[in-house]
Amino acid sequence: MKTGVIGLGAMGAPMARNLHRAGCLERVWNRSPEKASCLSSELGVRIADSPADLAAACELVLLSLSADDDLLQVMQALQPGLHCGMVVVDTSTVSRETAIRAAALAQPAEFLDAPVSGGTEGARLGTLVMMVGGEAAVIERIAPVLSVVAGRVEHMGPHGAGQATKAVNQVMAAGINQAVTEALAFATALQLPLDKIIEVAGGGAAGNWFLAHRGATMTQGQFDPGFRVALHHKDLAICKQMAAQFDVALPLVEMTLIHYRRLMEAGFADEDISALFREKRRLFDNNGDHPKKS
Amino acid sequence: MKTGVIGLGAMGAPMARNLHRAGCLERVWNRSPEKASCLSSELGVRIADSPADLAAACELVLLSLSADDDLLQVMQALQPGLHCGMVVVDTSTVSRETAIRAAALAQPAEFLDAPVSGGTEGARLGTLVMMVGGEAAVIERIAPVLSVVAGRVEHMGPHGAGQATKAVNQVMAAGINQAVTEALAFATALQLPLDKIIEVAGGGAAGNWFLAHRGATMTQGQFDPGFRVALHHKDLAICKQMAAQFDVALPLVEMTLIHYRRLMEAGFADEDISALFREKRRLFDNNGDHPKKS
Repeated sequence: MKTGVIGLGAMGAPMARNLHRAGCLERVWNRSPEKASCLSSELGVRIADSPADLAAACELVLLSLSADDDLLQVMQALQPGLHCGMVVVDTSTVSRETAIRAAALAQPAEFLDAPVSGGTEGARLGTLVMMVGGEAAVIERIAPVLSVVAGRVEHMGPHGAGQATKAVNQVMAAGINQAVTEALAFATALQLPLDKIIEVAGGGAAGNWFLAHRGATMTQGQFDPGFRVALHHKDLAICKQMAAQFDVALPLVEMTLIHYRRLMEAGFADEDISALFREKRRLFDNNGDHPKKS
Repeated sequence: MKTGVIGLGAMGAPMARNLHRAGCLERVWNRSPEKASCLSSELGVRIADSPADLAAACELVLLSLSADDDLLQVMQALQPGLHCGMVVVDTSTVSRETAIRAAALAQPAEFLDAPVSGGTEGARLGTLVMMVGGEAAVIERIAPVLSVVAGRVEHMGPHGAGQATKAVNQVMAAGINQAVTEALAFATALQLPLDKIIEVAGGGAAGNWFLAHRGATMTQGQFDPGFRVALHHKDLAICKQMAAQFDVALPLVEMTLIHYRRLMEAGFADEDISALFREKRRLFDNNGDHPKKS
Protein backbone atom coordinates (compact mmCIF):
# COMPACT_ATOMS: atom_id res chain seq x y z
CA MET A 1 0.00 0.00 0.00
CA LYS A 2 1.65 3.21 -1.23
CA THR A 3 2.08 5.41 1.83
CA GLY A 4 3.04 9.07 2.18
CA VAL A 5 4.18 10.76 5.38
CA ILE A 6 3.63 14.44 6.14
CA GLY A 7 5.43 15.88 9.16
CA LEU A 8 8.93 14.52 9.64
CA GLY A 9 9.64 15.58 13.22
CA ALA A 10 10.67 13.55 16.24
CA MET A 11 7.77 11.12 15.71
CA GLY A 12 7.15 11.37 11.95
CA ALA A 13 10.73 10.68 10.87
CA PRO A 14 11.11 7.34 12.70
CA MET A 15 7.64 6.27 11.54
CA ALA A 16 8.68 7.08 7.96
CA ARG A 17 11.87 5.04 8.42
CA ASN A 18 9.85 2.02 9.57
CA LEU A 19 7.46 2.37 6.62
CA HIS A 20 10.45 2.58 4.27
CA ARG A 21 11.92 -0.58 5.81
CA ALA A 22 8.55 -2.31 5.22
CA GLY A 23 8.71 -1.25 1.58
CA CYS A 24 5.63 0.97 1.52
CA LEU A 25 6.99 4.54 1.77
CA GLU A 26 6.13 6.30 -1.48
CA ARG A 27 6.50 10.02 -0.75
CA VAL A 28 7.34 12.41 2.08
CA TRP A 29 6.57 16.09 2.65
CA ASN A 30 7.44 18.55 5.41
CA ARG A 31 6.59 22.22 5.88
CA SER A 32 10.23 23.16 6.41
CA PRO A 33 11.96 21.53 3.43
CA GLU A 34 15.30 20.75 5.15
CA LYS A 35 13.85 17.86 7.13
CA ALA A 36 12.36 16.37 3.98
CA SER A 37 15.72 16.74 2.17
CA CYS A 38 17.57 15.01 4.99
CA LEU A 39 15.21 12.05 5.11
CA SER A 40 15.07 11.89 1.32
CA SER A 41 18.87 11.59 1.06
CA GLU A 42 18.95 9.08 3.91
CA LEU A 43 16.26 6.78 2.49
CA GLY A 44 16.25 7.67 -1.20
CA VAL A 45 12.55 8.44 -1.00
CA ARG A 46 10.88 11.05 -3.21
CA ILE A 47 9.78 14.41 -1.79
CA ALA A 48 6.32 15.42 -2.94
CA ASP A 49 5.91 18.88 -4.51
CA SER A 50 2.97 19.59 -2.23
CA PRO A 51 0.59 17.79 0.15
CA ALA A 52 -1.88 17.46 -2.76
CA ASP A 53 0.80 15.90 -4.97
CA LEU A 54 1.60 13.44 -2.16
CA ALA A 55 -2.08 12.56 -1.72
CA ALA A 56 -2.52 11.98 -5.46
CA ALA A 57 0.40 9.52 -5.50
CA CYS A 58 -0.59 7.53 -2.38
CA GLU A 59 -3.29 5.22 -1.05
CA LEU A 60 -2.55 6.11 2.56
CA VAL A 61 -1.37 9.41 4.02
CA LEU A 62 0.07 9.41 7.52
CA LEU A 63 0.23 12.77 9.31
CA SER A 64 2.46 13.65 12.25
CA LEU A 65 1.93 17.32 13.10
CA SER A 66 2.12 19.59 16.13
CA ALA A 67 -1.11 21.46 16.64
CA ASP A 68 -4.77 21.75 15.68
CA ASP A 69 -4.19 24.60 13.19
CA ASP A 70 -1.38 22.72 11.47
CA LEU A 71 -3.67 19.75 10.92
CA LEU A 72 -6.50 21.84 9.47
CA GLN A 73 -4.08 23.67 7.15
CA VAL A 74 -2.57 20.41 5.93
CA MET A 75 -6.04 18.94 5.37
CA GLN A 76 -6.89 21.96 3.18
CA ALA A 77 -3.64 21.56 1.27
CA LEU A 78 -4.23 17.82 0.80
CA GLN A 79 -7.72 18.22 -0.61
CA PRO A 80 -7.00 18.61 -4.36
CA GLY A 81 -5.17 15.27 -4.28
CA LEU A 82 -7.59 13.27 -2.14
CA HIS A 83 -9.50 10.50 -3.89
CA CYS A 84 -12.01 7.76 -3.16
CA GLY A 85 -10.74 4.67 -1.38
CA MET A 86 -7.67 6.32 0.11
CA VAL A 87 -7.17 6.85 3.84
CA VAL A 88 -5.74 9.76 5.83
CA VAL A 89 -4.38 8.69 9.25
CA ASP A 90 -3.61 11.52 11.65
CA THR A 91 -1.24 10.49 14.44
CA SER A 92 -1.00 14.04 15.88
CA THR A 93 -2.57 14.94 19.22
CA VAL A 94 -5.33 17.49 18.65
CA SER A 95 -8.79 18.10 20.09
CA ARG A 96 -11.71 15.80 19.43
CA GLU A 97 -13.50 18.61 17.57
CA THR A 98 -10.53 19.24 15.29
CA ALA A 99 -10.42 15.52 14.47
CA ILE A 100 -14.10 15.62 13.53
CA ARG A 101 -13.50 18.69 11.33
CA ALA A 102 -10.50 17.00 9.71
CA ALA A 103 -12.59 13.93 8.96
CA ALA A 104 -15.09 16.14 7.12
CA LEU A 105 -12.29 17.86 5.19
CA ALA A 106 -10.88 14.47 4.17
CA GLN A 107 -13.87 13.51 2.02
CA PRO A 108 -14.01 11.72 -0.36
CA ALA A 109 -11.09 9.98 1.37
CA GLU A 110 -11.51 8.04 4.63
CA PHE A 111 -10.09 9.53 7.82
CA LEU A 112 -8.85 8.06 11.09
CA ASP A 113 -7.81 10.08 14.13
CA ALA A 114 -5.02 7.92 15.49
CA PRO A 115 -2.94 9.64 18.18
CA VAL A 116 -0.18 7.54 19.64
CA SER A 117 1.59 7.02 22.93
CA GLY A 118 5.01 5.54 23.50
CA GLY A 119 7.16 8.52 22.60
CA THR A 120 10.10 8.73 20.24
CA GLU A 121 11.40 5.37 21.42
CA GLY A 122 8.08 3.71 20.55
CA ALA A 123 8.14 5.45 17.17
CA ARG A 124 11.66 4.18 16.49
CA LEU A 125 10.89 0.61 17.56
CA GLY A 126 7.45 0.55 15.91
CA THR A 127 5.83 -0.29 19.24
CA LEU A 128 3.53 2.73 19.58
CA VAL A 129 0.07 2.35 21.06
CA MET A 130 -2.42 3.83 18.62
CA MET A 131 -5.87 5.00 19.80
CA VAL A 132 -8.13 5.18 16.79
CA GLY A 133 -11.40 6.95 16.03
CA GLY A 134 -13.23 6.14 12.79
CA GLU A 135 -14.70 3.14 11.06
CA ALA A 136 -13.60 -0.35 12.05
CA ALA A 137 -13.65 -1.50 8.40
CA VAL A 138 -11.16 1.22 7.46
CA ILE A 139 -8.81 0.24 10.29
CA GLU A 140 -9.01 -3.38 9.18
CA ARG A 141 -8.24 -2.49 5.59
CA ILE A 142 -5.00 -0.66 6.45
CA ALA A 143 -4.04 -2.83 9.45
CA PRO A 144 -0.88 -4.19 7.76
CA VAL A 145 0.50 -0.65 7.40
CA LEU A 146 -0.55 0.44 10.89
CA SER A 147 1.20 -2.61 12.33
CA VAL A 148 4.47 -1.28 10.87
CA VAL A 149 4.36 1.80 13.11
CA ALA A 150 2.29 0.58 16.09
CA GLY A 151 2.59 -2.43 18.36
CA ARG A 152 -1.03 -2.05 19.33
CA VAL A 153 -3.98 -0.51 17.50
CA GLU A 154 -7.14 0.02 19.54
CA HIS A 155 -10.42 1.10 17.97
CA MET A 156 -12.10 3.45 20.46
CA GLY A 157 -15.21 4.59 18.60
CA PRO A 158 -16.27 7.05 15.86
CA HIS A 159 -14.22 10.03 14.61
CA GLY A 160 -12.80 11.92 17.59
CA ALA A 161 -12.76 8.90 19.94
CA GLY A 162 -9.04 8.38 19.33
CA GLN A 163 -8.28 11.95 20.38
CA ALA A 164 -10.67 11.69 23.34
CA THR A 165 -8.78 8.59 24.50
CA LYS A 166 -5.45 10.36 24.14
CA ALA A 167 -6.80 13.26 26.21
CA VAL A 168 -7.85 10.86 28.99
CA ASN A 169 -4.39 9.28 28.87
CA GLN A 170 -2.68 12.68 29.12
CA VAL A 171 -4.81 13.65 32.13
CA MET A 172 -3.79 10.44 33.87
CA ALA A 173 -0.13 10.98 32.96
CA ALA A 174 -0.29 14.52 34.40
CA GLY A 175 -1.73 13.25 37.66
CA ILE A 176 0.85 10.51 37.98
CA ASN A 177 3.61 13.01 37.32
CA GLN A 178 2.14 15.14 40.14
CA ALA A 179 1.94 12.11 42.43
CA VAL A 180 5.47 10.85 41.87
CA THR A 181 7.22 14.23 41.92
CA GLU A 182 5.35 15.47 45.01
CA ALA A 183 6.08 12.27 46.92
CA LEU A 184 9.75 12.16 45.92
CA ALA A 185 10.27 15.85 46.75
CA PHE A 186 8.74 15.13 50.17
CA ALA A 187 11.07 12.14 50.55
CA THR A 188 14.04 14.34 49.64
CA ALA A 189 13.08 16.89 52.29
CA LEU A 190 12.73 14.05 54.81
CA GLN A 191 16.27 12.94 53.87
CA LEU A 192 15.16 9.40 53.10
CA PRO A 193 17.25 7.09 50.90
CA LEU A 194 15.57 7.75 47.55
CA ASP A 195 16.66 4.54 45.85
CA LYS A 196 14.92 2.52 48.56
CA ILE A 197 11.85 4.77 48.45
CA ILE A 198 11.53 4.14 44.71
CA GLU A 199 11.80 0.40 45.28
CA VAL A 200 9.43 0.20 48.24
CA ALA A 201 6.74 2.49 46.79
CA GLY A 202 7.13 0.86 43.39
CA GLY A 203 6.46 -2.59 44.81
CA GLY A 204 3.09 -1.71 46.36
CA ALA A 205 -0.28 -0.14 45.60
CA ALA A 206 1.41 3.13 44.58
CA GLY A 207 3.53 1.36 41.95
CA ASN A 208 3.57 2.90 38.48
CA TRP A 209 5.52 3.02 35.21
CA PHE A 210 6.60 6.64 35.68
CA LEU A 211 8.17 6.01 39.09
CA ALA A 212 10.01 2.96 37.76
CA HIS A 213 11.30 4.76 34.63
CA ARG A 214 11.78 8.36 35.78
CA GLY A 215 12.18 8.10 39.57
CA ALA A 216 15.93 7.55 39.61
CA THR A 217 16.73 10.11 36.89
CA MET A 218 14.60 12.92 38.33
CA THR A 219 16.05 12.54 41.82
CA GLN A 220 19.53 12.70 40.24
CA GLY A 221 18.59 15.95 38.49
CA GLN A 222 18.50 14.40 34.99
CA PHE A 223 15.60 15.58 32.86
CA ASP A 224 16.42 14.47 29.30
CA PRO A 225 13.24 13.76 27.34
CA GLY A 226 11.34 11.39 27.26
CA PHE A 227 8.27 13.49 26.81
CA ARG A 228 8.82 17.23 26.70
CA VAL A 229 7.13 19.65 29.08
CA ALA A 230 6.02 21.92 26.20
CA LEU A 231 4.29 19.03 24.42
CA HIS A 232 2.44 17.80 27.49
CA HIS A 233 1.45 21.41 28.17
CA LYS A 234 -0.01 21.61 24.67
CA ASP A 235 -1.91 18.35 25.18
CA LEU A 236 -3.28 19.46 28.55
CA ALA A 237 -4.48 22.73 27.00
CA ILE A 238 -6.52 20.54 24.65
CA CYS A 239 -7.83 18.52 27.64
CA LYS A 240 -8.80 21.76 29.42
CA GLN A 241 -10.73 22.88 26.37
CA MET A 242 -12.47 19.49 26.05
CA ALA A 243 -13.45 19.53 29.75
CA ALA A 244 -14.69 23.13 29.43
CA GLN A 245 -17.30 21.87 27.00
CA PHE A 246 -18.84 20.10 30.00
CA ASP A 247 -18.43 23.31 32.07
CA VAL A 248 -15.81 21.44 34.06
CA ALA A 249 -12.33 22.49 35.21
CA LEU A 250 -10.35 19.33 35.95
CA PRO A 251 -8.23 19.97 39.07
CA LEU A 252 -5.12 18.06 37.98
CA VAL A 253 -5.22 19.58 34.51
CA GLU A 254 -5.53 23.14 35.84
CA MET A 255 -2.76 22.58 38.39
CA THR A 256 -0.37 20.92 35.96
CA LEU A 257 -0.86 23.62 33.30
CA ILE A 258 0.20 26.22 35.87
CA HIS A 259 3.24 24.17 36.94
CA TYR A 260 4.33 23.47 33.36
CA ARG A 261 3.94 27.14 32.39
CA ARG A 262 6.22 28.10 35.27
CA LEU A 263 8.76 25.52 34.10
CA MET A 264 8.55 26.79 30.52
CA GLU A 265 9.03 30.39 31.66
CA ALA A 266 12.11 29.28 33.60
CA GLY A 267 13.58 27.72 30.46
CA PHE A 268 12.72 24.04 30.97
CA ALA A 269 10.23 23.61 28.10
CA ASP A 270 12.37 21.00 26.38
CA GLU A 271 13.07 18.91 29.46
CA ASP A 272 11.23 15.71 30.31
CA ILE A 273 7.92 16.19 32.14
CA SER A 274 9.59 14.73 35.25
CA ALA A 275 11.14 18.25 35.55
CA LEU A 276 7.97 18.89 37.56
CA PHE A 277 10.19 17.54 40.35
CA ARG A 278 11.90 20.97 40.22
CA GLU A 279 8.59 22.68 41.07
CA LYS A 280 7.86 20.32 43.94
CA ARG A 281 11.36 20.64 45.36
CA ARG A 282 10.94 24.40 45.24
CA LEU A 283 8.05 24.08 47.71
CA PHE A 284 10.59 22.96 50.28
CA ASP A 285 13.21 25.56 49.37
CA ASN A 286 10.97 28.52 50.34
CA ASN A 287 13.10 30.64 48.04
CA GLY A 288 10.68 32.05 45.50
CA ASP A 289 11.57 31.72 41.85
CA HIS A 290 13.36 29.02 39.94
CA PRO A 291 16.98 29.72 39.24
CA LYS A 292 16.92 30.32 35.48
CA LYS A 293 18.48 27.65 33.32
CA SER A 294 22.08 28.57 32.64
CA MET B 1 11.11 -15.91 69.98
CA LYS B 2 8.11 -15.35 72.28
CA THR B 3 5.94 -12.75 70.61
CA GLY B 4 2.96 -10.78 71.85
CA VAL B 5 0.50 -8.86 69.68
CA ILE B 6 -1.39 -5.77 70.87
CA GLY B 7 -4.18 -4.50 68.61
CA LEU B 8 -6.21 -7.25 66.99
CA GLY B 9 -8.02 -5.32 64.26
CA ALA B 10 -8.14 -5.82 60.51
CA MET B 11 -4.34 -5.94 60.32
CA GLY B 12 -3.33 -7.16 63.79
CA ALA B 13 -5.54 -10.26 63.82
CA PRO B 14 -4.20 -11.81 60.60
CA MET B 15 -0.63 -10.97 61.67
CA ALA B 16 -1.30 -12.75 64.99
CA ARG B 17 -2.67 -15.78 63.11
CA ASN B 18 0.50 -15.99 61.02
CA LEU B 19 2.67 -15.71 64.14
CA HIS B 20 0.62 -18.45 65.78
CA ARG B 21 1.07 -20.67 62.73
CA ALA B 22 4.83 -20.07 62.97
CA GLY B 23 4.73 -21.17 66.60
CA CYS B 24 5.83 -17.92 68.21
CA LEU B 25 2.60 -16.28 69.42
CA GLU B 26 2.79 -16.15 73.23
CA ARG B 27 0.18 -13.57 74.29
CA VAL B 28 -2.39 -11.20 72.83
CA TRP B 29 -4.06 -8.08 74.19
CA ASN B 30 -6.68 -5.71 72.82
CA ARG B 31 -8.26 -2.58 74.27
CA SER B 32 -11.78 -3.88 73.66
CA PRO B 33 -11.64 -7.38 75.19
CA GLU B 34 -14.09 -9.09 72.79
CA LYS B 35 -11.58 -9.16 69.93
CA ALA B 36 -8.99 -10.74 72.21
CA SER B 37 -11.52 -13.33 73.42
CA CYS B 38 -12.45 -14.26 69.86
CA LEU B 39 -8.87 -14.73 68.74
CA SER B 40 -8.00 -16.51 71.98
CA SER B 41 -10.75 -19.09 71.45
CA GLU B 42 -9.83 -19.44 67.77
CA LEU B 43 -6.11 -20.01 68.38
CA GLY B 44 -5.97 -21.15 71.98
CA VAL B 45 -3.57 -18.34 72.78
CA ARG B 46 -3.43 -16.68 76.19
CA ILE B 47 -4.81 -13.16 76.71
CA ALA B 48 -2.48 -10.97 78.75
CA ASP B 49 -3.95 -9.21 81.81
CA SER B 50 -2.43 -5.93 80.64
CA PRO B 51 0.07 -4.58 78.13
CA ALA B 52 2.70 -4.66 80.89
CA ASP B 53 1.90 -8.31 81.64
CA LEU B 54 2.24 -9.09 77.92
CA ALA B 55 5.58 -7.27 77.70
CA ALA B 56 6.91 -9.12 80.76
CA ALA B 57 6.09 -12.48 79.17
CA CYS B 58 7.51 -11.75 75.69
CA GLU B 59 10.77 -11.03 73.86
CA LEU B 60 9.04 -9.22 71.05
CA VAL B 61 5.88 -7.07 71.13
CA LEU B 62 4.15 -6.29 67.87
CA LEU B 63 1.72 -3.37 67.88
CA SER B 64 -1.05 -2.74 65.36
CA LEU B 65 -2.98 0.37 66.46
CA SER B 66 -5.00 3.15 64.87
CA ALA B 67 -3.67 6.54 65.82
CA ASP B 68 -0.80 8.45 67.39
CA ASP B 69 -2.50 8.82 70.79
CA ASP B 70 -3.30 5.10 70.95
CA LEU B 71 0.36 4.29 70.39
CA LEU B 72 1.60 6.65 73.10
CA GLN B 73 -0.97 5.31 75.58
CA VAL B 74 -0.02 1.73 74.86
CA MET B 75 3.69 2.58 75.22
CA GLN B 76 2.94 4.02 78.68
CA ALA B 77 0.95 0.94 79.62
CA LEU B 78 3.72 -1.38 78.36
CA GLN B 79 6.46 0.31 80.34
CA PRO B 80 6.33 -1.61 83.65
CA GLY B 81 6.85 -4.86 81.72
CA LEU B 82 9.57 -3.71 79.31
CA HIS B 83 13.00 -5.21 79.85
CA CYS B 84 16.48 -5.16 78.34
CA GLY B 85 16.99 -7.11 75.13
CA MET B 86 13.35 -7.16 74.12
CA VAL B 87 11.99 -5.38 71.03
CA VAL B 88 8.80 -3.40 70.44
CA VAL B 89 7.78 -3.31 66.78
CA ASP B 90 5.06 -0.80 65.89
CA THR B 91 3.32 -1.58 62.61
CA SER B 92 0.78 1.26 62.97
CA THR B 93 0.90 4.34 60.76
CA VAL B 94 1.66 7.38 62.91
CA SER B 95 3.76 10.53 62.51
CA ARG B 96 7.54 10.45 62.49
CA GLU B 97 7.60 12.49 65.71
CA THR B 98 5.29 10.07 67.49
CA ALA B 99 7.54 7.18 66.43
CA ILE B 100 10.56 9.00 67.90
CA ARG B 101 8.67 9.62 71.16
CA ALA B 102 7.56 5.98 71.27
CA ALA B 103 11.17 4.87 70.82
CA ALA B 104 12.15 6.94 73.86
CA LEU B 105 9.27 5.49 75.88
CA ALA B 106 10.33 1.95 74.94
CA GLN B 107 13.62 2.11 76.84
CA PRO B 108 15.22 -0.08 78.09
CA ALA B 109 13.64 -2.14 75.27
CA GLU B 110 14.56 -1.64 71.64
CA PHE B 111 12.00 -0.02 69.33
CA LEU B 112 11.33 -0.19 65.60
CA ASP B 113 8.78 1.92 63.73
CA ALA B 114 7.63 -0.52 61.09
CA PRO B 115 4.51 0.62 59.22
CA VAL B 116 3.33 -1.71 56.53
CA SER B 117 1.68 -1.56 53.13
CA GLY B 118 -0.20 -4.30 51.37
CA GLY B 119 -3.54 -4.06 53.20
CA THR B 120 -5.55 -6.77 54.88
CA GLU B 121 -4.77 -9.19 52.05
CA GLY B 122 -1.04 -8.69 52.57
CA ALA B 123 -1.52 -9.18 56.32
CA ARG B 124 -3.43 -12.43 55.74
CA LEU B 125 -0.87 -13.80 53.27
CA GLY B 126 2.15 -12.55 55.23
CA THR B 127 3.33 -10.58 52.20
CA LEU B 128 3.28 -7.09 53.70
CA VAL B 129 5.98 -4.58 52.80
CA MET B 130 7.48 -3.28 56.04
CA MET B 131 9.29 0.08 56.13
CA VAL B 132 11.49 0.16 59.17
CA GLY B 133 13.13 2.91 61.21
CA GLY B 134 15.61 1.96 63.94
CA GLU B 135 18.86 0.07 64.27
CA ALA B 136 19.90 -2.42 61.59
CA ALA B 137 21.23 -4.84 64.20
CA VAL B 138 17.84 -4.99 65.90
CA ILE B 139 16.09 -5.71 62.60
CA GLU B 140 18.58 -8.46 61.90
CA ARG B 141 18.07 -10.02 65.32
CA ILE B 142 14.29 -10.36 64.89
CA ALA B 143 14.31 -10.94 61.12
CA PRO B 144 12.93 -14.50 61.42
CA VAL B 145 9.81 -13.18 63.18
CA LEU B 146 9.37 -10.22 60.83
CA SER B 147 9.56 -12.57 57.87
CA VAL B 148 6.46 -14.34 59.21
CA VAL B 149 4.33 -11.22 58.73
CA ALA B 150 6.14 -9.39 55.93
CA GLY B 151 7.30 -10.47 52.48
CA ARG B 152 9.75 -7.60 52.42
CA VAL B 153 11.48 -5.71 55.22
CA GLU B 154 13.28 -2.53 54.21
CA HIS B 155 15.50 -0.60 56.62
CA MET B 156 14.98 3.10 55.83
CA GLY B 157 17.08 4.83 58.51
CA PRO B 158 16.93 5.78 62.20
CA HIS B 159 13.77 5.92 64.35
CA GLY B 160 11.01 7.70 62.43
CA ALA B 161 12.35 6.81 58.97
CA GLY B 162 9.86 3.97 58.63
CA GLN B 163 6.96 6.34 59.29
CA ALA B 164 8.48 8.98 56.99
CA THR B 165 8.63 6.38 54.21
CA LYS B 166 5.03 5.37 54.80
CA ALA B 167 4.02 9.05 54.59
CA VAL B 168 5.78 9.41 51.24
CA ASN B 169 4.03 6.27 50.02
CA GLN B 170 0.62 7.59 51.11
CA VAL B 171 1.20 10.90 49.31
CA MET B 172 2.02 9.02 46.13
CA ALA B 173 -1.03 6.77 46.56
CA ALA B 174 -3.25 9.85 47.00
CA GLY B 175 -1.92 11.42 43.81
CA ILE B 176 -2.37 8.25 41.82
CA ASN B 177 -5.92 7.92 43.09
CA GLN B 178 -6.51 11.52 41.92
CA ALA B 179 -4.93 10.75 38.53
CA VAL B 180 -6.87 7.57 37.82
CA THR B 181 -10.26 8.75 39.08
CA GLU B 182 -10.05 12.13 37.30
CA ALA B 183 -9.05 10.51 34.02
CA LEU B 184 -11.70 7.78 34.21
CA ALA B 185 -14.43 10.28 35.13
CA PHE B 186 -13.38 12.32 32.09
CA ALA B 187 -13.51 9.16 29.96
CA THR B 188 -17.00 8.40 31.28
CA ALA B 189 -18.19 11.90 30.35
CA LEU B 190 -16.66 11.45 26.89
CA GLN B 191 -18.62 8.17 26.58
CA LEU B 192 -15.52 6.18 25.76
CA PRO B 193 -15.41 2.38 26.23
CA LEU B 194 -13.93 2.23 29.74
CA ASP B 195 -12.58 -1.31 29.51
CA LYS B 196 -10.49 -0.32 26.50
CA ILE B 197 -9.37 2.92 28.19
CA ILE B 198 -8.14 0.94 31.20
CA GLU B 199 -6.22 -1.39 28.89
CA VAL B 200 -4.74 1.27 26.62
CA ALA B 201 -3.74 3.68 29.41
CA GLY B 202 -2.50 0.78 31.53
CA GLY B 203 -0.16 -0.39 28.78
CA GLY B 204 1.71 2.92 28.44
CA ALA B 205 3.55 5.58 30.40
CA ALA B 206 0.45 6.23 32.54
CA GLY B 207 0.28 2.58 33.61
CA ASN B 208 -0.08 1.91 37.33
CA TRP B 209 -1.13 -0.71 39.90
CA PHE B 210 -4.20 1.23 41.01
CA LEU B 211 -5.65 1.49 37.50
CA ALA B 212 -5.05 -2.21 36.90
CA HIS B 213 -6.60 -3.29 40.24
CA ARG B 214 -9.31 -0.67 40.86
CA GLY B 215 -10.12 0.71 37.37
CA ALA B 216 -12.75 -1.87 36.46
CA THR B 217 -14.43 -1.95 39.87
CA MET B 218 -14.67 1.83 40.32
CA THR B 219 -16.18 2.36 36.88
CA GLN B 220 -18.74 -0.36 37.73
CA GLY B 221 -19.62 1.49 40.94
CA GLN B 222 -18.04 -1.10 43.25
CA PHE B 223 -16.09 0.38 46.13
CA ASP B 224 -15.48 -2.50 48.56
CA PRO B 225 -12.22 -1.99 50.45
CA GLY B 226 -9.30 -2.46 49.74
CA PHE B 227 -8.07 0.52 51.64
CA ARG B 228 -10.71 2.57 53.41
CA VAL B 229 -11.22 6.28 52.76
CA ALA B 230 -11.21 7.06 56.51
CA LEU B 231 -7.83 5.37 56.99
CA HIS B 232 -6.15 7.11 54.06
CA HIS B 233 -7.65 10.37 55.35
CA LYS B 234 -6.03 9.72 58.73
CA ASP B 235 -2.68 8.96 57.06
CA LEU B 236 -2.84 12.10 54.90
CA ALA B 237 -3.58 14.21 57.98
CA ILE B 238 -0.25 12.88 59.32
CA CYS B 239 1.45 13.77 56.01
CA LYS B 240 -0.02 17.27 56.15
CA GLN B 241 1.36 17.73 59.65
CA MET B 242 4.78 16.40 58.62
CA ALA B 243 4.91 18.75 55.61
CA ALA B 244 3.80 21.69 57.78
CA GLN B 245 7.03 21.27 59.74
CA PHE B 246 8.77 22.45 56.56
CA ASP B 247 6.19 25.28 56.22
CA VAL B 248 4.90 23.43 53.16
CA ALA B 249 1.35 22.59 52.08
CA LEU B 250 1.54 19.70 49.63
CA PRO B 251 -1.04 20.33 46.87
CA LEU B 252 -2.16 16.72 46.38
CA VAL B 253 -2.40 16.13 50.12
CA GLU B 254 -4.51 19.26 50.70
CA MET B 255 -6.78 18.45 47.77
CA THR B 256 -7.26 14.81 48.68
CA LEU B 257 -8.01 15.60 52.33
CA ILE B 258 -10.84 17.87 51.14
CA HIS B 259 -12.19 15.24 48.75
CA TYR B 260 -12.01 12.45 51.34
CA ARG B 261 -13.71 14.61 53.97
CA ARG B 262 -16.57 15.23 51.55
CA LEU B 263 -16.84 11.50 50.91
CA MET B 264 -16.82 10.77 54.64
CA GLU B 265 -19.53 13.37 55.25
CA ALA B 266 -21.62 11.74 52.55
CA GLY B 267 -21.33 8.35 54.28
CA PHE B 268 -18.55 6.72 52.23
CA ALA B 269 -15.84 6.56 54.93
CA ASP B 270 -15.70 2.77 54.85
CA GLU B 271 -15.52 2.45 51.08
CA ASP B 272 -12.32 1.85 49.15
CA ILE B 273 -10.30 5.00 48.34
CA SER B 274 -11.29 4.52 44.69
CA ALA B 275 -14.63 6.03 45.83
CA LEU B 276 -12.87 9.29 44.92
CA PHE B 277 -14.28 8.40 41.49
CA ARG B 278 -17.66 9.56 42.94
CA GLU B 279 -16.21 13.04 43.57
CA LYS B 280 -14.71 13.30 40.09
CA ARG B 281 -17.90 12.09 38.42
CA ARG B 282 -19.78 14.73 40.36
CA LEU B 283 -17.73 17.41 38.57
CA PHE B 284 -19.49 16.38 35.39
CA ASP B 285 -22.94 16.10 36.98
CA ASN B 286 -23.11 19.80 37.90
CA ASN B 287 -25.66 18.86 40.54
CA GLY B 288 -24.20 20.02 43.82
CA ASP B 289 -24.05 17.54 46.67
CA HIS B 290 -23.53 13.81 46.73
CA PRO B 291 -26.68 11.82 47.07
CA LYS B 292 -26.35 10.47 50.61
CA LYS B 293 -25.66 6.78 50.97
CA SER B 294 -28.95 4.95 51.35
